[in-house]
Amino acid sequence: MEDRYSKGLKNLKKIHPEASKALIESLKNIAPDLGRFVVEFAYGDVYERGGLDLKSRQIATLAALIAIGDTKPELKDHIKGALNVGCNRQEIIEVIIQMAVYAGFPRAINGINTAKEVFEEIDNEK
Amino acid sequence: MEDRYSKGLKNLKKIHPEASKALIESLKNIAPDLGRFVVEFAYGDVYERGGLDLKSRQIATLAALIAIGDTKPELKDHIKGALNVGCNRQEIIEVIIQMAVYAGFPRAINGINTAKEVFEEIDNEK
Amino acid sequence: MEDRYSKGLKNLKKIHPEASKALIESLKNIAPDLGRFVVEFAYGDVYERGGLDLKSRQIATLAALIAIGDTKPELKDHIKGALNVGCNRQEIIEVIIQMAVYAGFPRAINGINTAKEVFEEIDNEK
Amino acid sequence: MEDRYSKGLKNLKKIHPEASKALIESLKNIAPDLGRFVVEFAYGDVYERGGLDLKSRQIATLAALIAIGDTKPELKDHIKGALNVGCNRQEIIEVIIQMAVYAGFPRAINGINTAKEVFEEIDNEK
Amino acid sequence: MEDRYSKGLKNLKKIHPEASKALIESLKNIAPDLGRFVVEFAYGDVYERGGLDLKSRQIATLAALIAIGDTKPELKDHIKGALNVGCNRQEIIEVIIQMAVYAGFPRAINGINTAKEVFEEIDNEK
Amino acid sequence: MEDRYSKGLKNLKKIHPEASKALIESLKNIAPDLGRFVVEFAYGDVYERGGLDLKSRQIATLAALIAIGDTKPELKDHIKGALNVGCNRQEIIEVIIQMAVYAGFPRAINGINTAKEVFEEIDNEK
Repeated sequence: MEDRYSKGLKNLKKIHPEASKALIESLKNIAPDLGRFVVEFAYGDVYERGGLDLKSRQIATLAALIAIGDTKPELKDHIKGALNVGCNRQEIIEVIIQMAVYAGFPRAINGINTAKEVFEEIDNEK
Repeated sequence: MEDRYSKGLKNLKKIHPEASKALIESLKNIAPDLGRFVVEFAYGDVYERGGLDLKSRQIATLAALIAIGDTKPELKDHIKGALNVGCNRQEIIEVIIQMAVYAGFPRAINGINTAKEVFEEIDNEK
Repeated sequence: MEDRYSKGLKNLKKIHPEASKALIESLKNIAPDLGRFVVEFAYGDVYERGGLDLKSRQIATLAALIAIGDTKPELKDHIKGALNVGCNRQEIIEVIIQMAVYAGFPRAINGINTAKEVFEEIDNEK
Repeated sequence: MEDRYSKGLKNLKKIHPEASKALIESLKNIAPDLGRFVVEFAYGDVYERGGLDLKSRQIATLAALIAIGDTKPELKDHIKGALNVGCNRQEIIEVIIQMAVYAGFPRAINGINTAKEVFEEIDNEK
Repeated sequence: MEDRYSKGLKNLKKIHPEASKALIESLKNIAPDLGRFVVEFAYGDVYERGGLDLKSRQIATLAALIAIGDTKPELKDHIKGALNVGCNRQEIIEVIIQMAVYAGFPRAINGINTAKEVFEEIDNEK
Repeated sequence: MEDRYSKGLKNLKKIHPEASKALIESLKNIAPDLGRFVVEFAYGDVYERGGLDLKSRQIATLAALIAIGDTKPELKDHIKGALNVGCNRQEIIEVIIQMAVYAGFPRAINGINTAKEVFEEIDNEK
């Protein structure tokens, strides 16, 4: 078990250096096993797989989160995660604009507003 | 208008050499303008944009279609489209497996079954 | 109770003269109360209300069914229902095309294909 | 009509002793009939039925609300409702964790955060 | 291109005299082309079409936004838009109540609460 | 790893004695790891947990699948699964009817039609 958790934690920290701790902390007192499943399954089993580079994986995740809706906190984390694994801001914006075609304009506009928030947070931290 | 339509048709034929005709044909007698909007807006305005390569655009589309659900015909076309712009089968499978994390296992399993159908169709045509 | 059921049945028969019987029949042996709730609540309580004409109600229902997805049998019935309360084919097509903006092109294209099926069924019955 | 309303109100008060009043109040000036339909149809017709105990009904409702998304106020009320009809906190957490499998991790994580809020509100009221 | 944009802007200003500027402004620094697509495609191509009056188009949009969920800012704008093209408050409320049948009560209740907010904002501005 | 897989397979066989083999088989040639994740994560990690009985877990799953939509094959398997862990037909029907309240009538009616198919398949096998 250790092994999957360690691998997952390494991937989680690489993609989400800031958010990783907060996620695990926030689940610790109520559902620590859900935090463990995120680390072991999502980041230990799935992100650890070869066959698709991390940048493409983040693009897929952004598209899915925007399409699904009601995922703003996760979308914020994954926009940062996309930047951390090599996407530039324009690429993120392009994914979001493209979602207007597949999930409708409201989802795309909300996604852009979330990206705007994230980019401003990053710029203000500098 | 011509211009956007021409650009869109070029992109549509590049990504979906087989499906492009069928899509426009199927809409011709009932809602030809919807077919025109697909060509002009989706493929002429959005896919024509720079800033994100076509392979990444197809990955985003696959992720969105699987997450949304009830999109089997479009998913089949876009799995072929992903292959046509340089994704290999393993990359497509990875995108679908990853959707188990973000959209749940039923969507991922249905997506894999659709990919299986597409790959078998392609293998049988050879 | 009789009263709500009678009012609902009258509305159901007005909007869906063919489908009304089939719906109630199909639920009769497994969940007759679900059929009763459709009649009493959906058609007896809601459609019976004033304040919005039946044509507008059908337009709202078509939009919702297309946006939600995975509702093909209901969409077929409500396209017929829309025709029965005064929508013409072009108006139905317009509602569906407009859904490309709010729910994405896959939902709109699927909706148009469903409308095509319904219109062909009607034309073949003549 | 009186009868269904009375039965519904009894069920609503049993499951949501605090929220029941607020719900009806908040709808009173804008759409009192929607409040009446909640009481008569949801709690008078559906929850009044035998064949499934109230605890199981609340588990089904929690699962549905988490899967659907964008239902935070309703989810908060129904987490309290689940506690009121005999679910313990661990059972509620288990339902939410299980939703990671069927609706994806973002929905489950958001659900857990909502449960955390509810449990803290309850603990602070003591 | 000018032409579609001009037509779209005219429609956008007619339906959303207040929100139109804010929408374009908010997208200007991050994804101005998404703003342009809203104007050109949604309001220039789709809303410009004949075959369905603007009031019916707004009813379809309200129904879709409520059914989709996680669209509160857009729903607020389109409730105002519906009022601007001739819907009265009762008609808007009726569309929302009807959504309880097709998208479930949580979506309808959230929709009513959003309508309440909009109506109060309008009344307070007087 | 063996251990989670073994536990998961035991749970999977208990809940889905017929479908378990078919699921793993169908994924074997295209995405065997997705089959492994179903066994290890869904049935080995999640269903193995205490804190909620299997019958309640199946009720939650049925509710989620109906609410999500476009999950007919999974819903069929889980209706059988619910019967296998102690739900009776009436309880399953009650969960589905209740979904009319939370996810709308179309989802509930489709769910009932799926249940009908499953029950008839079971009766015909006798």
